[in-house]
Amino acid sequence: MTVDILHLIKRDPIAKSRWFKGTFGIEREGLRITEDGNIAQTSHPISLGNRSQHPFIQTDFAESQLEFITPTCHSVKATLEWLSAITAVGYRNLDDDESIWPLSMPYSYKGLSDLRVSQLEDEREVDYRKYLIKRYGKTRQLISGIHFNVGLDNELLKRLYSLTQMTDSKYSSFKSFQNDCYFKIAQHYQMYQWFYVYLFAATPITHKDFFELAHAQLPKLPVRSLRSSKYGYVNDSSIHFDYQSLAEFAKQLTSYVKEGHLVAEKELYEPIRFRGADSITDVVTDGIKYIEFRQIDVDPYDPLGISSSQLYFTHLFLLFLLTDTLSYDVTKISTYKKKLEKVALSTPSTPLDPNLMREARTILSQMREMLEIVADGTATTTLHIMKEVLEVCEERIEDVSLTPAYAVMDDFSDLEKIAKDSFIQKNKIKETYYELPGFQDLELSTQAIMMDAIRLGLTIEVIDRSDQILRLGYKNHIEYVKDGNMTSLDNYITPLLMANKVVTKKLLAENAIHVPIGQLYDNEDIARQSFPSWCHNSIVIKPKSTNFGLGISILEGLEEDSKQSFEIALTHAFNYDDQVIIELFQPGTEFRFFVLNNHVLAVLKRVPAHIIGDGKNAINSLISTKNSSLLRGDEHEKPLVKITIDDSVLAEIKKQGYSSLNAVPPKDKVVYLRRNSNISTGGDSVDMTDFIPDFYKEIAVKAAQTLNAKICGVDMIIDIPKETEQLNQVRVPGNLPYAIIEANFNPMMSMHIFPAIGKSRDVAHAILIALFPEYR
Amino acid sequence: MTVDILHLIKRDPIAKSRWFKGTFGIEREGLRITEDGNIAQTSHPISLGNRSQHPFIQTDFAESQLEFITPTCHSVKATLEWLSAITAVGYRNLDDDESIWPLSMPYSYKGLSDLRVSQLEDEREVDYRKYLIKRYGKTRQLISGIHFNVGLDNELLKRLYSLTQMTDSKYSSFKSFQNDCYFKIAQHYQMYQWFYVYLFAATPITHKDFFELAHAQLPKLPVRSLRSSKYGYVNDSSIHFDYQSLAEFAKQLTSYVKEGHLVAEKELYEPIRFRGADSITDVVTDGIKYIEFRQIDVDPYDPLGISSSQLYFTHLFLLFLLTDTLSYDVTKISTYKKKLEKVALSTPSTPLDPNLMREARTILSQMREMLEIVADGTATTTLHIMKEVLEVCEERIEDVSLTPAYAVMDDFSDLEKIAKDSFIQKNKIKETYYELPGFQDLELSTQAIMMDAIRLGLTIEVIDRSDQILRLGYKNHIEYVKDGNMTSLDNYITPLLMANKVVTKKLLAENAIHVPIGQLYDNEDIARQSFPSWCHNSIVIKPKSTNFGLGISILEGLEEDSKQSFEIALTHAFNYDDQVIIELFQPGTEFRFFVLNNHVLAVLKRVPAHIIGDGKNAINSLISTKNSSLLRGDEHEKPLVKITIDDSVLAEIKKQGYSSLNAVPPKDKVVYLRRNSNISTGGDSVDMTDFIPDFYKEIAVKAAQTLNAKICGVDMIIDIPKETEQLNQVRVPGNLPYAIIEANFNPMMSMHIFPAIGKSRDVAHAILIALFPEYR
Repeated sequence: MTVDILHLIKRDPIAKSRWFKGTFGIEREGLRITEDGNIAQTSHPISLGNRSQHPFIQTDFAESQLEFITPTCHSVKATLEWLSAITAVGYRNLDDDESIWPLSMPYSYKGLSDLRVSQLEDEREVDYRKYLIKRYGKTRQLISGIHFNVGLDNELLKRLYSLTQMTDSKYSSFKSFQNDCYFKIAQHYQMYQWFYVYLFAATPITHKDFFELAHAQLPKLPVRSLRSSKYGYVNDSSIHFDYQSLAEFAKQLTSYVKEGHLVAEKELYEPIRFRGADSITDVVTDGIKYIEFRQIDVDPYDPLGISSSQLYFTHLFLLFLLTDTLSYDVTKISTYKKKLEKVALSTPSTPLDPNLMREARTILSQMREMLEIVADGTATTTLHIMKEVLEVCEERIEDVSLTPAYAVMDDFSDLEKIAKDSFIQKNKIKETYYELPGFQDLELSTQAIMMDAIRLGLTIEVIDRSDQILRLGYKNHIEYVKDGNMTSLDNYITPLLMANKVVTKKLLAENAIHVPIGQLYDNEDIARQSFPSWCHNSIVIKPKSTNFGLGISILEGLEEDSKQSFEIALTHAFNYDDQVIIELFQPGTEFRFFVLNNHVLAVLKRVPAHIIGDGKNAINSLISTKNSSLLRGDEHEKPLVKITIDDSVLAEIKKQGYSSLNAVPPKDKVVYLRRNSNISTGGDSVDMTDFIPDFYKEIAVKAAQTLNAKICGVDMIIDIPKETEQLNQVRVPGNLPYAIIEANFNPMMSMHIFPAIGKSRDVAHAILIALFPEYR
Repeated sequence: MTVDILHLIKRDPIAKSRWFKGTFGIEREGLRITEDGNIAQTSHPISLGNRSQHPFIQTDFAESQLEFITPTCHSVKATLEWLSAITAVGYRNLDDDESIWPLSMPYSYKGLSDLRVSQLEDEREVDYRKYLIKRYGKTRQLISGIHFNVGLDNELLKRLYSLTQMTDSKYSSFKSFQNDCYFKIAQHYQMYQWFYVYLFAATPITHKDFFELAHAQLPKLPVRSLRSSKYGYVNDSSIHFDYQSLAEFAKQLTSYVKEGHLVAEKELYEPIRFRGADSITDVVTDGIKYIEFRQIDVDPYDPLGISSSQLYFTHLFLLFLLTDTLSYDVTKISTYKKKLEKVALSTPSTPLDPNLMREARTILSQMREMLEIVADGTATTTLHIMKEVLEVCEERIEDVSLTPAYAVMDDFSDLEKIAKDSFIQKNKIKETYYELPGFQDLELSTQAIMMDAIRLGLTIEVIDRSDQILRLGYKNHIEYVKDGNMTSLDNYITPLLMANKVVTKKLLAENAIHVPIGQLYDNEDIARQSFPSWCHNSIVIKPKSTNFGLGISILEGLEEDSKQSFEIALTHAFNYDDQVIIELFQPGTEFRFFVLNNHVLAVLKRVPAHIIGDGKNAINSLISTKNSSLLRGDEHEKPLVKITIDDSVLAEIKKQGYSSLNAVPPKDKVVYLRRNSNISTGGDSVDMTDFIPDFYKEIAVKAAQTLNAKICGVDMIIDIPKETEQLNQVRVPGNLPYAIIEANFNPMMSMHIFPAIGKSRDVAHAILIALFPEYR
């Protein structure tokens, strides 16, 4: 390439503003291991769906070699979010006695002869793997790595192309310019491969069996990067490219395959692959769409296998390669390779020699320069990150002890310890099972749907993040989901009817389902005159449209002399709405039934905030302990909410005979801290699905059917005698009086998935299967 | 009945509060006439659906005898509303040269021999009518009347029953008490029939042919009530009941039918019928559910055939009969009948004789007394109405010239004039074709759906009036409609996607439908940095969620020096939302496409408020004339909105060279009064359905399909060259550049049904047929 890209963009604000845009994706391989650090011999977890058509979690060479694949993202940030999410789902679906080996190189090759290749549906894929064993041996194929797919922004390329047309180096077509850009990156990478390996390599050692099994001589270990050296995941020396031109490269590759040096193009293990079509010939003809950067060793310090800063740096570095003003000298190709081999096979504690260090400093200063040129078109956050990662790398150049290989050499030498740490890592990811890393800003219900969709292998696109709208797909079938459970399963009029409490009650009552008897008034005068009809009852007076319970009064045991309080309650309610409902108060315990397609999937009870005495600790200490649970946080952020101490808590404990928060309740004594059972004020959610007789479940289903609701949260009050009412899970007697007080068209799923007490009910999974009944 | 009902309720607030409650319904008959006042010989209008299963509009005896039937209502007020609505739909669907005869007695019997009985599907019904002709002659059967169905409130009856159980007159069952209440009303009505006829009779004359054709002697005319006299709609004198007891009545009626005196129970023409089952035996066994009060002559002064005050009075009077403390004397039955015949056959100008006047005053004072007793349990509005109607009747007793018969005798004697007036009446009802009398408080779209549903004969229930929720039914199929076009046709997720403008555009663009190119920013800093991308274009900057256009800026022809205005516009938009959209400004004319089930039913263009000069009148006078249209009112109340004059109107006309509102524009000159084309600021809606090529319609359908929307309003901007753009209906050229700027899930139907210019598009009817495809 003869065009000076940096020169082109210098005065072009549009090009600058699109410089860091593009498409991005990551593939990360990782071996499943058992608790002793050996490679697992088990089959791919069935909970992870069908790996042959799974967009996110597949198997690579071996059955136990997981591959996490992000979708195509439009920023490095989004790519990291997706990698976090997929990694978490992967870890959480491993068998209890398995984890993921955190390094590229395995340390144990026990039972290697029994190790199965990926048990894929496509026999040709299985055969290809068997061929690889024959040619390279199992050991080499088990080396795991990370591939970073990067496509340049199309608008940027178009803009640059139009700018080149005003220069002397005119291109015959946009496609040839596009190909030239990508080829330049790969070409110049040949010159700087040693540089990237120095900065990021993390494969200093492995078990000596590796060399034996690979029929290789044992080198002096540790080295900086086994994976990038001749011992690593590379082709025979017979396969050689000089990167003179793309056409030449394509011709060479095609002929290697034709002549049987390679069984297929995918057997080529160059550090950068050109992508966009099935064969290199088509890629060149159609235009390179993106490159696959394959140099990345798994970073054992990061649960994702790659740190955010490495990823940002890699992006910046690939852009530097595009702008590099040095000429590529095809005659020096063996010099380049030698530099690499030297850096890769040095002890990790060996600093760069003065020449390389000088060269490295130049590269970094050029990268910094490039950053300055595009600064005024780039978001300040991006600039800030880029500058930081440059600094990190500058320090590594000067101080070899800051390189990953150096650290790994020290920290990761004990097979058992690594295995043990990987289980600690895994359990940490499992502990926060209610959230999806990378997407914690979404509602818990939407996170839950995404978790299950990732697990099952549906395609997922967050088409509006703040609006919680997901697009899910399976084969050619597309479904949209908003707020976790607003879907195409329901028709439009149903939620509109359910949003109207008066209409809901009317329809239920017509269908012989008990609801609190009530009356709507749109005139305060007429409402006042209804006093005699309500006298001698306990009643609720509430605005038709209630928000946060405002304007609601409960009048217990209304008698002739209560007329004034009746009227005050009415005036209060009419302050909030033109229409006011008076209805009979329904005593009892409230349960939430989650109904999907005429089945009750979950029943939940809410219990007011409370602690249980242990005979030793004071109330405030018991509250602190309860609040320290990972499940408790601020509202919406966690499945449960921290208990805050205020006057009403103090009043409540006093009623129960405790003078202060320092009082120590006896063992097993339940101390209630509030009267209301809302989760938002520290209440506990208790799964009651197995403790509620069918009698009530059938009523909940009938209510949903009456409203023609496919997804519905039915709130039912059951008049359980006080003396049999219990804190936790106790079977509710059948046939008690009940009333349905509400039906919710967007029921909070997370309550059922993450209850405080009892079994988790996977309603998110059930909704996905209801949306995609064809999913096997 | 030996129980004193009034005594029972005196101290019972619950009974008082339910006293005026109950179920109500009206059936009103009316003959279709031609412009000369003769009875129409045409068939029942096909636009009124199948009368054999029509809940609201049927035919009675003759093919030309319309019957308007209200559904069962829970108040007199609601009954009147329904009667207004059904009457309006009836009138509006008559042939242009037909109207409805406004009196009970026809005045013309021309062509009677050709007059067909109702052409019903059920042959037995046709045969029955043929039998009636044979027995009573066509003339009598053509007398039209009004039936008022009244059921006592069930809670009231239960309460009264429980109170009776504490008295000496215990009932053996609730049903026997209930039957006794209804029977007492019918029984005591025998005593006071003369009273009701005096107050409300309105059938003083008819053509003398009536008597000849009925083989009756010509009486001295006018009389007070032909219909209630022996000339009227009564059985032979051989059919006689003494109203001693319900059991006796039932026995007698059964035997009349058994012995062939009556062909069926329905042939009995007593003034009050007991209803609730098919035969009187079953009615008695199952319990009377309501009574049918048949005494009402059609009131020619009221387009409904009955005035609101008469209906309220009748209800009050029936309740008085229930509470009457006089004893019914079975031996006096012929005295009662004589009183009736005397009052009915007197000249309308004859006052009551002193005895009857005294009796009448007593009845009225007892009614007043009853009203006072229940006053503290009754809504003040109801009390007020009841007191007023009592006063009206008190005056009629004292002054015979205030009775309807007296007035009708004077006002309705000229056949041609009556016919002409009935056409004036009809045209008045047709003029406000955009509203449904009785339901004008609903949105125009909901009124439009109801109008068509009444016409087609779907069952209709307004289940939430303020929320605009209708329940429609056809046979066993139920559908709910909210806001006129939110239905089960669409699924729940579709409107949620359409509510999100960013998502809508994304999905459309993915499907190769043009939308204004844009970008969403959730960070003002990043948005500012995007200036170079937008430079050299005209753009719109707007908050993601726009309300009433707040926060929107249009920046035309953005150049390098416009950065400051770009940033001001961004800050402005970010004041309204955390997310801001920048998109390319789309020039052209905006059209609204109404899409239903993949078909464009209507296309509309909005034209800014304007007047067209006539060369004589000044601008302000032309505005007044335009504003005087019945179609213009305040927003939402009418299809169009009155043009208000403000500074921007003055500025606009000045731009066009008019110094003030007093300027007189030349003939045919269009003067625009505003720049924006909103209907809400006086703009005109112009139907363009036939002027838009299929090219655009197919795009609108594709957009709706992309969003999976069954009912959808697509807003499309078509870049029509300014010079060819016209005010009114002109064919739009095909294949012009376009962009879809919005898709609405609740499109305003009324715009298309009631355009200012062009053809009305019956989208409401189309929606009903889409909901009930089985409707024939």
